[in-house]
Amino acid sequence: MIVELISIGTELLLGNIVNTNANYLSVKCAELGFSMYHQVTIGDNEARLYEAIETALNRSNIVILTGGLGPTSDDITKETLAKVLQRRVIMDEHSRERIQSYLDRIITTNKIIPKGLAKITENNWKQALKIEDSIVIDNEYGSAPGYIVEDKDKKILLLPGPPLEMIPMFENNILPYLKNLQDKVFITRMVKICGIGESTAETMLIDLIEGQSNPTIAPYAKGGEVHFRITAKANNEEEGINLINPIIDEMKSRFSNNIYTTDEDETLEEAVVRLLIKHNLTLVTAESCTGGLLSGRIVNVAGASDTFKEGFITYSNQAKIKYLEVNPDILKTHGAVSEETAREMAIGAVKASGCDVSIAVTGIAGPGGGTEEKPVGLVYISCHISGKTFISQRHFKGSREKIREHSVVAALDLIRRSILEIYD
Amino acid sequence: MIVELISIGTELLLGNIVNTNANYLSVKCAELGFSMYHQVTIGDNEARLYEAIETALNRSNIVILTGGLGPTSDDITKETLAKVLQRRVIMDEHSRERIQSYLDRIITTNKIIPKGLAKITENNWKQALKIEDSIVIDNEYGSAPGYIVEDKDKKILLLPGPPLEMIPMFENNILPYLKNLQDKVFITRMVKICGIGESTAETMLIDLIEGQSNPTIAPYAKGGEVHFRITAKANNEEEGINLINPIIDEMKSRFSNNIYTTDEDETLEEAVVRLLIKHNLTLVTAESCTGGLLSGRIVNVAGASDTFKEGFITYSNQAKIKYLEVNPDILKTHGAVSEETAREMAIGAVKASGCDVSIAVTGIAGPGGGTEEKPVGLVYISCHISGKTFISQRHFKGSREKIREHSVVAALDLIRRSILEIYD
Repeated sequence: MIVELISIGTELLLGNIVNTNANYLSVKCAELGFSMYHQVTIGDNEARLYEAIETALNRSNIVILTGGLGPTSDDITKETLAKVLQRRVIMDEHSRERIQSYLDRIITTNKIIPKGLAKITENNWKQALKIEDSIVIDNEYGSAPGYIVEDKDKKILLLPGPPLEMIPMFENNILPYLKNLQDKVFITRMVKICGIGESTAETMLIDLIEGQSNPTIAPYAKGGEVHFRITAKANNEEEGINLINPIIDEMKSRFSNNIYTTDEDETLEEAVVRLLIKHNLTLVTAESCTGGLLSGRIVNVAGASDTFKEGFITYSNQAKIKYLEVNPDILKTHGAVSEETAREMAIGAVKASGCDVSIAVTGIAGPGGGTEEKPVGLVYISCHISGKTFISQRHFKGSREKIREHSVVAALDLIRRSILEIYD
Repeated sequence: MIVELISIGTELLLGNIVNTNANYLSVKCAELGFSMYHQVTIGDNEARLYEAIETALNRSNIVILTGGLGPTSDDITKETLAKVLQRRVIMDEHSRERIQSYLDRIITTNKIIPKGLAKITENNWKQALKIEDSIVIDNEYGSAPGYIVEDKDKKILLLPGPPLEMIPMFENNILPYLKNLQDKVFITRMVKICGIGESTAETMLIDLIEGQSNPTIAPYAKGGEVHFRITAKANNEEEGINLINPIIDEMKSRFSNNIYTTDEDETLEEAVVRLLIKHNLTLVTAESCTGGLLSGRIVNVAGASDTFKEGFITYSNQAKIKYLEVNPDILKTHGAVSEETAREMAIGAVKASGCDVSIAVTGIAGPGGGTEEKPVGLVYISCHISGKTFISQRHFKGSREKIREHSVVAALDLIRRSILEIYD
């Protein structure tokens, strides 16, 4: 089954909004095991929309259209599809009643609408029209309904543009409909890797990737990490898992502890927090160049407070001396960005806080501050745990933001590797 | 001039990443005054990419392709375009040298890569190939170069997929090239507002927005802020500025100090750092629920070290008592999430650090921890400056991440408003 997305709205082409619908629907269709080959974004223009729908119906089995179902004259999705299918558009009395009661409620409770606008305008009834022989889907969170239209062997789904209306409609009504169309089961697993570049990681798997058919292995880089998605097509879940498991085992033996998780939903920071909690360890951070970003990532994990208690942002040398007892002589001799300072920061943070594990980051994020000896992007990361201190020296390229983002990933990774070194 | 975007990458069709490039390029093309009628997303598949390029060249003047320029066998953008244009792909010695030195630097400084893997792999050289008679654009932040290809009256731009590589390349090299193709001048200015919701801000300007033709006024909400873009079409820059200035003056009189900047490139954190430096003030942070995110945003500003010296992440009550001398009785009586605790944190941070200004945040980011009296999303922010303490109580809706993001924006805004209150 091939599915195609058509996102409709001039505001998308002008960049006024980001097309998060396309992303959401892509994930859902992949999970359903549908193949998606094309996504198209088009403005509120009848001729171009007509052509896009025709093209999509020629090359895909299922076409999902989002947007252009509203009350204004710009909203032409339903009308244009009707023309392509050569069907009439007729009044749907059920929708008319639902829209009436929906708008009554909005108008009486919304204090912001200027007085003159506080009435149902004639064009609202446009939303109660439906294409002949289509299935109307009520919108729980807005006025425009959605529609399922079947035309010979093609299925066309019309969904409202606002994600807050589209997503619940998709989950409650469209998903069950689509599941019914799928006879094969698609099982997908993720292997997430940290500390190796995309190109290297792929080279390590090149024989598997080149020989793939079912399951398939797809790599992609994501903010300093590499993720591999393994997808199997099968008659049932068990068969799918049996196809995937040998691949995952092989990847585990090749990448060993460079893999931080095989859980689709687990982020690097979640894996680190899980590991800390598993070993009943508390964490303290000491950040210089990342200035709070590392702690911020950790605190994004719900339940992080079970392990993460406090952190120091020691941007100035004074702060490093005052809170982390970094030896001023070391700062003078080796500089703030040095292995020695990173080590002192990590040891000092454990001492000051009484936590079990510390992670310290000091580096030159740029754009200024670099020298030949210590260029922009040079970062030292140190993890102190059970009396041992681990150090990682890195040199990142890119903007200030990218250097700091990669430093955060490298710091999370060093916590993980240090714990594994000591406890596993 | 009609421009068309083709985004390339199976990871987009699978929904593994959101296509923020399309949004960014849409905004830029609209600013340049180009019309965009189609955006297409396609996987790493030669036949479909070939067809998409052919279709785009038939109906558009400028075609921008992003993604698929990397080193792996999946990356086929350059090769497929060459086939469409019937041109050869040849080695570009300049790119070869640049990539060599880029990768040397990455590999020699990364200590984590296992020993056997610390070499440039053969497929990296694929990125040094160029289409005959194309212009190579160096990538400052990655290995894959970009390209400008001219074919009769058509212009084709190839840009790398990662936004951190694509955006600087676009700004520095592609934008000047595209500006040259445009005879009308499009002048655009931004008015950035904080502390008022989008709907309210829009209502305050409804007469201007409804009466607009040239300049146009386009509002959009962005992570707790509202930005208005004013765009004038003119024969030259001076004419454009003369059209825009009266609108900006009117907006300044309506929004007064809710406007934090009219500088396109200035972020809220940059405006805050600028204000602190202007008044020669040092800043200390004390974060609970934002856990470092606020400091992280501040440190993202190049030169932040002139004002920001240190910060405390006091996630636990103990840390609040130990570092900020928050009175344990207050924590007991009013709780960690209270006006009183926020005030104590702000005062304590100034005392501990000796800085001039402090900003403290404490709140319930969820998903757990909420009660009827203190629901998830309740956040107290406090700014202490020159012996005065300012407090802001907010109640944000949404996910843990969104609550924390909005808390950061509100905290930055409170620093700004407190300084203006005292000094202006």
